[in-house]
Amino acid sequence: MFDLPLPGAVYRADGTTAFTLWAPTATTVELIVLDPKPHVVAMQPIGYGCWHVVTAAPPGTCYRYRLDGSRERPDPASRCQPDGVHGPSAVVDHRFDWSDAAWRGVPLADLVIYELHVGTFTPEGTFEAIIPHLPMLRDLGITAIELMPVAHFPGTRNWGYDGVYLYAPHTAYGGVTGLKRLVDAAHAHGMAVLLDVVYNHFGPEGNYLWDIAPPAFTDRYRTPWGAAINYDGAESDLVRWLIIENALEWLREYHLDGLRLDATQAIFDVSPYHVLEELADRVRAQALRLGRPAYLFAEHPLNDPRFARPKELGGYGLTGIWSDDFHHALHTLFTGEQDGYYEGFGRIEQMATAIERSFVFAGEYSPHARRRFGRDPSDLAVEQFVVFAQNHDQVGNRAVGDRLGATLSEAQMRLAAATVLLSPYTPLIFMGEEYNEPAPFQYFTDHSDPALITGVREGRKREFAYFLRPGQAVPDPQDPATFMRSKLNHSLRTVGRHAAHQAFYRELLRIRRELPGLRQRPRTRVQGRVIVVEWPGIRL
Amino acid sequence: MFDLPLPGAVYRADGTTAFTLWAPTATTVELIVLDPKPHVVAMQPIGYGCWHVVTAAPPGTCYRYRLDGSRERPDPASRCQPDGVHGPSAVVDHRFDWSDAAWRGVPLADLVIYELHVGTFTPEGTFEAIIPHLPMLRDLGITAIELMPVAHFPGTRNWGYDGVYLYAPHTAYGGVTGLKRLVDAAHAHGMAVLLDVVYNHFGPEGNYLWDIAPPAFTDRYRTPWGAAINYDGAESDLVRWLIIENALEWLREYHLDGLRLDATQAIFDVSPYHVLEELADRVRAQALRLGRPAYLFAEHPLNDPRFARPKELGGYGLTGIWSDDFHHALHTLFTGEQDGYYEGFGRIEQMATAIERSFVFAGEYSPHARRRFGRDPSDLAVEQFVVFAQNHDQVGNRAVGDRLGATLSEAQMRLAAATVLLSPYTPLIFMGEEYNEPAPFQYFTDHSDPALITGVREGRKREFAYFLRPGQAVPDPQDPATFMRSKLNHSLRTVGRHAAHQAFYRELLRIRRELPGLRQRPRTRVQGRVIVVEWPGIRL
Repeated sequence: MFDLPLPGAVYRADGTTAFTLWAPTATTVELIVLDPKPHVVAMQPIGYGCWHVVTAAPPGTCYRYRLDGSRERPDPASRCQPDGVHGPSAVVDHRFDWSDAAWRGVPLADLVIYELHVGTFTPEGTFEAIIPHLPMLRDLGITAIELMPVAHFPGTRNWGYDGVYLYAPHTAYGGVTGLKRLVDAAHAHGMAVLLDVVYNHFGPEGNYLWDIAPPAFTDRYRTPWGAAINYDGAESDLVRWLIIENALEWLREYHLDGLRLDATQAIFDVSPYHVLEELADRVRAQALRLGRPAYLFAEHPLNDPRFARPKELGGYGLTGIWSDDFHHALHTLFTGEQDGYYEGFGRIEQMATAIERSFVFAGEYSPHARRRFGRDPSDLAVEQFVVFAQNHDQVGNRAVGDRLGATLSEAQMRLAAATVLLSPYTPLIFMGEEYNEPAPFQYFTDHSDPALITGVREGRKREFAYFLRPGQAVPDPQDPATFMRSKLNHSLRTVGRHAAHQAFYRELLRIRRELPGLRQRPRTRVQGRVIVVEWPGIRL
Repeated sequence: MFDLPLPGAVYRADGTTAFTLWAPTATTVELIVLDPKPHVVAMQPIGYGCWHVVTAAPPGTCYRYRLDGSRERPDPASRCQPDGVHGPSAVVDHRFDWSDAAWRGVPLADLVIYELHVGTFTPEGTFEAIIPHLPMLRDLGITAIELMPVAHFPGTRNWGYDGVYLYAPHTAYGGVTGLKRLVDAAHAHGMAVLLDVVYNHFGPEGNYLWDIAPPAFTDRYRTPWGAAINYDGAESDLVRWLIIENALEWLREYHLDGLRLDATQAIFDVSPYHVLEELADRVRAQALRLGRPAYLFAEHPLNDPRFARPKELGGYGLTGIWSDDFHHALHTLFTGEQDGYYEGFGRIEQMATAIERSFVFAGEYSPHARRRFGRDPSDLAVEQFVVFAQNHDQVGNRAVGDRLGATLSEAQMRLAAATVLLSPYTPLIFMGEEYNEPAPFQYFTDHSDPALITGVREGRKREFAYFLRPGQAVPDPQDPATFMRSKLNHSLRTVGRHAAHQAFYRELLRIRRELPGLRQRPRTRVQGRVIVVEWPGIRL
């Protein structure tokens, strides 16, 4: 796009690195190379508010930019932040000794997604610490792991939605090389790797793009998490360049198999060429060149099939959509909850509808939204919907982050698992769910800004005070214990009811594999508290 | 929708009137009937925040609503505001003695639109004063007149974009009956009548919807003219009910032939069922029932063909779109202006492009927008684009509201006219253009709020100071002389060069009628300062 170089520092394997920074309001931009001996290199304007220079900077070289001779800033397109969000950026060499040349990806219809948070999946909390668990996950029937966002965030404890360096896999997780090793290993075990990416906002701490490129943000729209990103106003082409090249780099340089696009309802774009349609076009073209599929799933809780409809029918051409409705219908059948977005769910007929078409609301009036909600998705293929009984939001955004197993009986948990894993749709399992992990998944952060720490702490308290039961308290996000409390205890997998639970998941996924007929829209009949599900050609 | 009664006061021909008000935050709502003797009638909640009562109230009865026993307010869905925007509302009987039963509308491909401002088209400034001019317009070749917005606005002098009573044709223009008489007469002369409607904001004075139904507005989006209307958030169904029933009423009760939807880029809706798509669906369904076409043209300056693409291709199914690009390309070829949205226009190749596809920018980088702009419209039919050499904005939003004739020679004016009237697209003529009216069309208002008067006056000065030539001053919008100065002088039509100019327009429209082959996308070649236009099958 715009025949601009890639954003940030791109090492050129000859000892030099090309540096490109979008800084449209700067009058001068200099590169400060910090090692081996700090020196300053002037950068040249190359149009569209971008500045560029090629200079000697081998991998590991730390650098900053200096705007207008005074403001020193890290690189918003940094691939590595060795000293955190406020520290200098470091040059990265993307060359890696891959062993997955024969890897052709996992067919969409075969995806069984395992969502995990890198920091709490293992005691070490790193990409590479996941590798030993891959055989077990493969044996379970998982065909893809999905990493919660890894873009560098403040501190070392965060869900990942406070990321501020889109291009930099967090160093606490093992950084660039650690992620590549994980992906290479997953491919060796026949498993795909998807990554959750956040293109609807930047985190509240360490976001220097504000200062370096003010037009990256707009006040024409308002998101729940701060300023909206400018995808359709003046200079938005450069924002698209930053974001789209980021998506392409994850897929190209890290051999990732797809992206989960976080909260796309907060990606505002009224232009004729929605940024997600452009993203899908560019990803599709690169996937053709790379010879393996690249999936784009949108977390779009407005039940809008347009996001996954093909371009020829006016859609954006994404691969698929997360169906929150399927979860809400299932969850409320067991818990009877009616708070927040559960309002209006809870009838067994709605679960039957969700089984038939994934969305419950496809134009009907929603008491929670207080308007007609959603649209009929029946023209989309079943594998284009991701369904789940639990995920990081549905567990972590509860007052104390309690998992479904804390409320449901073993039998209910198994019924929930069967409803998801035998549904026609692409199932997602939240880490630990498969063996009914008792540890909660709580909201944790590691900010350094005192005002922000207090704001987040008090904000969570206010938001969840209403839901607390006697004796409960909203965990302090900033307390390291909250993070540690959320770690999985893998040893439970082989113990008693947990082992039995995992075996049950393995059996369901075996049935799913061996009965492809399950992957079509079934007809359902409700008889009292039973939903009779009839797949053409199959009768359970 | 929602099986709710129509908004506002609907007379029931038995002496009673049904009153329905959306007031979602009120705890009690009472109807205060002011004549013959003031009395209060309690209203009942009927769901969705609406209140309703049927009571004796013959046509002409004045009324208000009283919310929570204290706040007396006019009816935001009033059909008549006899005493202005702050006064009571009056019941209207929509029965009218129509003589157009055989009227079947004007085919889209035959539309030649004449845009006029009711208040300044004639000395009287009323709907009925237009009627004597219809034969002349018909003889000229006009097949549709388009009225600038008539919804009741503050005072008696306004372009119409400060309207605050969507359902009430301004009493200064002749109100409900005056408009029906004009439409009936136009149909008798074989001419359609379109109406400009404003669904992107409410005027700054007399907008009581703010207080009566706060959820009608949202701060999730920002428009250049104030709060955005809530089309996709909680309670938005009721906003859609207010707006869509309004559009349906103009077409049903006033036999209008179509609507021009003002500034649709400021109608924000990220729901899966855009309000304009729903509007088009409901209008299309009513048109089928009424047995005559109903056109919906969007003023959508983002070059987005999706608005007029059919639903099956993911479009909103509107009839067509105004092409500002065609105007900018034509205007700048003659004037060389490069200010504001003219920046980046002015090359003859762009005019050739506009002739071929109506949009100049269909994805190319626009210096004014400072981003790639627009999308290829070639799949739409030529008649789906409205093109013009002048319109109320392109004249009125100049420092002193000078018409094109104040700058161009007679020959240039004729070349501009030929480019529009012989283009494949639906031509629009701005009132007075056909005889090269010298009077300007300036921005005029008649607000009563002192702070608003000053704000508008100073705002216009700031906005246009840069464009003033020596000796010029930005006209005071509030000064009645500004309004009077904008009145047409019809006597010029038969005088000298003005008469010759009008004859030239009549001749061009005759050629347009007699050469239907013009109405297809031509091929063009630029040779120096000449554009060679080749229509398959025609050579001019």
